[in-house]
Amino acid sequence: MHFTVAELAERVGGRVEGDGSIRIERVMPLDEAGPSDVSFFANRKYAADFAASRAGAVIVGESEAAAPGRTLLRAGNAYLAFAKVSTLFHPPREPVPEVSPRAVLGEGSVVDPSAEVQDLAYVGRGAVIGARTILFPGVYVGDGARIGDDCILYPNAVVRERCIVGNRCILQPGSVVGGDGFGFAFDMEGDGNGPRHYKVPQSGIAVLEDDVELGANSCVDRATLGRTVVRKGAKIDDLVMIAHNVDFGPLSIAAAQVGISGSTKIGMGVILAGQVGLVGHIDIGDGARLGAQSGVMNDVPAGEAYSGYPARPHRDWLKEQGALGHLPGLLKRVRELEKALRKLQEET
Amino acid sequence: MHFTVAELAERVGGRVEGDGSIRIERVMPLDEAGPSDVSFFANRKYAADFAASRAGAVIVGESEAAAPGRTLLRAGNAYLAFAKVSTLFHPPREPVPEVSPRAVLGEGSVVDPSAEVQDLAYVGRGAVIGARTILFPGVYVGDGARIGDDCILYPNAVVRERCIVGNRCILQPGSVVGGDGFGFAFDMEGDGNGPRHYKVPQSGIAVLEDDVELGANSCVDRATLGRTVVRKGAKIDDLVMIAHNVDFGPLSIAAAQVGISGSTKIGMGVILAGQVGLVGHIDIGDGARLGAQSGVMNDVPAGEAYSGYPARPHRDWLKEQGALGHLPGLLKRVRELEKALRKLQEET
Amino acid sequence: MHFTVAELAERVGGRVEGDGSIRIERVMPLDEAGPSDVSFFANRKYAADFAASRAGAVIVGESEAAAPGRTLLRAGNAYLAFAKVSTLFHPPREPVPEVSPRAVLGEGSVVDPSAEVQDLAYVGRGAVIGARTILFPGVYVGDGARIGDDCILYPNAVVRERCIVGNRCILQPGSVVGGDGFGFAFDMEGDGNGPRHYKVPQSGIAVLEDDVELGANSCVDRATLGRTVVRKGAKIDDLVMIAHNVDFGPLSIAAAQVGISGSTKIGMGVILAGQVGLVGHIDIGDGARLGAQSGVMNDVPAGEAYSGYPARPHRDWLKEQGALGHLPGLLKRVRELEKALRKLQEET
Repeated sequence: MHFTVAELAERVGGRVEGDGSIRIERVMPLDEAGPSDVSFFANRKYAADFAASRAGAVIVGESEAAAPGRTLLRAGNAYLAFAKVSTLFHPPREPVPEVSPRAVLGEGSVVDPSAEVQDLAYVGRGAVIGARTILFPGVYVGDGARIGDDCILYPNAVVRERCIVGNRCILQPGSVVGGDGFGFAFDMEGDGNGPRHYKVPQSGIAVLEDDVELGANSCVDRATLGRTVVRKGAKIDDLVMIAHNVDFGPLSIAAAQVGISGSTKIGMGVILAGQVGLVGHIDIGDGARLGAQSGVMNDVPAGEAYSGYPARPHRDWLKEQGALGHLPGLLKRVRELEKALRKLQEET
Repeated sequence: MHFTVAELAERVGGRVEGDGSIRIERVMPLDEAGPSDVSFFANRKYAADFAASRAGAVIVGESEAAAPGRTLLRAGNAYLAFAKVSTLFHPPREPVPEVSPRAVLGEGSVVDPSAEVQDLAYVGRGAVIGARTILFPGVYVGDGARIGDDCILYPNAVVRERCIVGNRCILQPGSVVGGDGFGFAFDMEGDGNGPRHYKVPQSGIAVLEDDVELGANSCVDRATLGRTVVRKGAKIDDLVMIAHNVDFGPLSIAAAQVGISGSTKIGMGVILAGQVGLVGHIDIGDGARLGAQSGVMNDVPAGEAYSGYPARPHRDWLKEQGALGHLPGLLKRVRELEKALRKLQEET
Repeated sequence: MHFTVAELAERVGGRVEGDGSIRIERVMPLDEAGPSDVSFFANRKYAADFAASRAGAVIVGESEAAAPGRTLLRAGNAYLAFAKVSTLFHPPREPVPEVSPRAVLGEGSVVDPSAEVQDLAYVGRGAVIGARTILFPGVYVGDGARIGDDCILYPNAVVRERCIVGNRCILQPGSVVGGDGFGFAFDMEGDGNGPRHYKVPQSGIAVLEDDVELGANSCVDRATLGRTVVRKGAKIDDLVMIAHNVDFGPLSIAAAQVGISGSTKIGMGVILAGQVGLVGHIDIGDGARLGAQSGVMNDVPAGEAYSGYPARPHRDWLKEQGALGHLPGLLKRVRELEKALRKLQEET
């Protein structure tokens, strides 16, 4: 597969600076690219790699300076242009319409003829698998669950009974949709056998709407009642925990190891950085951004950036962090003030 | 399935305020419930939903005000009453006593005739599966492992060789019992091939006592020597890490993404909030509560609430957090004090 | 299996203090050991257990005091000696050279005749499995992936297409090598269907070099372009997240629940304590140590210990933590200073 730089620019809505006729055969990192490769440059940390790169062409943004002698593919949204170029060279694998004889199809399940069910995959009773969807080995789709069209369920992904996955969803290996929510009522008597945590039935379901991606070993628990929902276009990284009855908004993003407690509502276009934790029953407004590792105890207004533990407006957090560095010195200064004052008091 | 409100009250030990003859067919959230549904109200955040709910009856606690015109099912422990009502409508699925021909039973394994071993489940050599226990597809029970009665092992749960799971345990999808503990001895010479981390055999086992629940993709590592133990009635949420030789006490609770380092001992009825981390070789006393994301470096006395990093008594942490907000202002005040004092000193 | 204490000392390069002829049959913890058991003592917390132990012999370091009447196996690196002794009693299980008829071997895959492929394991097209390597049930090795010699892939471990695992690697249950990196370009137009996160192809691979161990349910994502690499002898605990294009250095260690963002470079012999989080595109120098739960925003120089959020030199962090405890008192002292100063000002 190959394209000229000019063809690539046309396909992704960019323009060429330099020689548009260069033939491109691969997409490569700046430091590994050769004359038939296209690469990408945006992060200033890699300016030296950019300068030294042997790439045939480099995708850059509008604000990047001209680079005489180098062929650039310039685009308004350079990262998007790069993503589209890379997709040209790495198109998603087409499904092979086939159900492996080593897969298991439960009674009454409906698998679209264009879907691919690989060896050792399991489809439960009455479950539905949509058009062109691929189930890898070890995938489990529970009784009555529904998987939409054009999905990929990677090895050992699990969708438990009655849960719903929309169209064009991707479940990375080991991800779990519809595990029981964590709900127990403390029961002091325990039917005469002493105290126990009485399990609250988790009779609801978990729903991924269209275009959701779920990272490796991430978990979206089913609802106590009703639905846990991850809305259209949301993207979730690895090892993320989404508890029962959470409503995770459209186009929102959770980086790795984020944890969201029960019934919390995440708005649209929210960004949760890595390892953020949120308590239950709070609302995060549209477009809010939560800094890495922050611990969110209360509602966050739309559009705000919060950080720290407990999370507060990022500017307040920055101010406190700045002040914190002065604290050891401050202690000393106050001691000196006290001494000087005592001296003054004795003198007057 | 249906019950009158009066029947429900009788079954769960509550009492009716209003019309006990209303026929209830479902359990639903306040905002989705209709006249044939019972719902639940406790969290004041949902007072508006309670007021507006069309539910035929609502389960509430003793402290809740009367709601004229609304039928209440009142109970001392309203959440427990709700859990029991919900269990009436959503009884656990009965096992189907059968071993799938597509499951694998190792030599010498013993599966109780009342157990259900589904397609693609694996039972190792000499392993024992108790009465009425259900193994879903993709479950692995290692050689010589023992699973008690009335357990549910959801898809892709793993119990490695020789480990022990008690009665009435639930393993959510992808949970792992008995992975190797993380133990390495640094070996500078490495048999002449340069430094290495020499693996310390993890020859012990992991044990879940009765009535333990383990969340999706959670891990309980096997011991270096002896046993890692999760004691009777403990409940563990998703993505929790319990390291080798931990002793996790009875009725204790770990919320999602908690991490407990090696040989730490958790007492009885301890509550670990989300993303708490504990170092190894410490003791957490009975009934202690550790705030979300706290980092616990030392023993915590019984009954205490600790927070923060490093974790300290919650009231101290609160005081420091309160003071921290004043810190930027304090810096300014000290600067002014210094100026005023200099002026005074010059004057005198 | 049994050895005399003298034999053990010889095998592990230690020396005996006491009766070298004692016959040892097991390795046991101090508090469970009997006269035919060898145990290990290093952590002073267990001094009472050491004193009370009935162990036939105890492995200790050079700095440990003599213990009259007790047989000691003394070694320069006591923990390493213990690890080697334990390995004598618990040698790794030998592979049984066999491919189960219930395993699936893809077209063109090459499985070394000495390897063991258990029931329900899956080897993709063109994949290569090295000598004496063991694949447990539920393991998935993708198309074109290569697994080296003497590896153990525990149940439900996943190595996706084209990824590479070196020799003597251990993948604990549920670990995932080569899940897609988390990369999306925000696309405001979305082909006319409104905004979307456009998936950036993750066309690179993930590589584990020789002697790497990956903990239960840990994830090493494949690169956007090129390779995510975990280098020789690195050890990774459970539930760790290693993002696309990370370079994780040789002999480095990540404790449980660590998260490393994209393109970050970890040097040699680095120690990341539990739940540490690192942003992307930073460099952690050789031999650096990062304290538990620290949040690392910037490069860390070689050999340094950093802590806190944002991570800073550990000694600075300690100083600030110490000062923080004085903060509530400091507030009071400044108020008093202000009062006293006002009084002085009025008097003069």
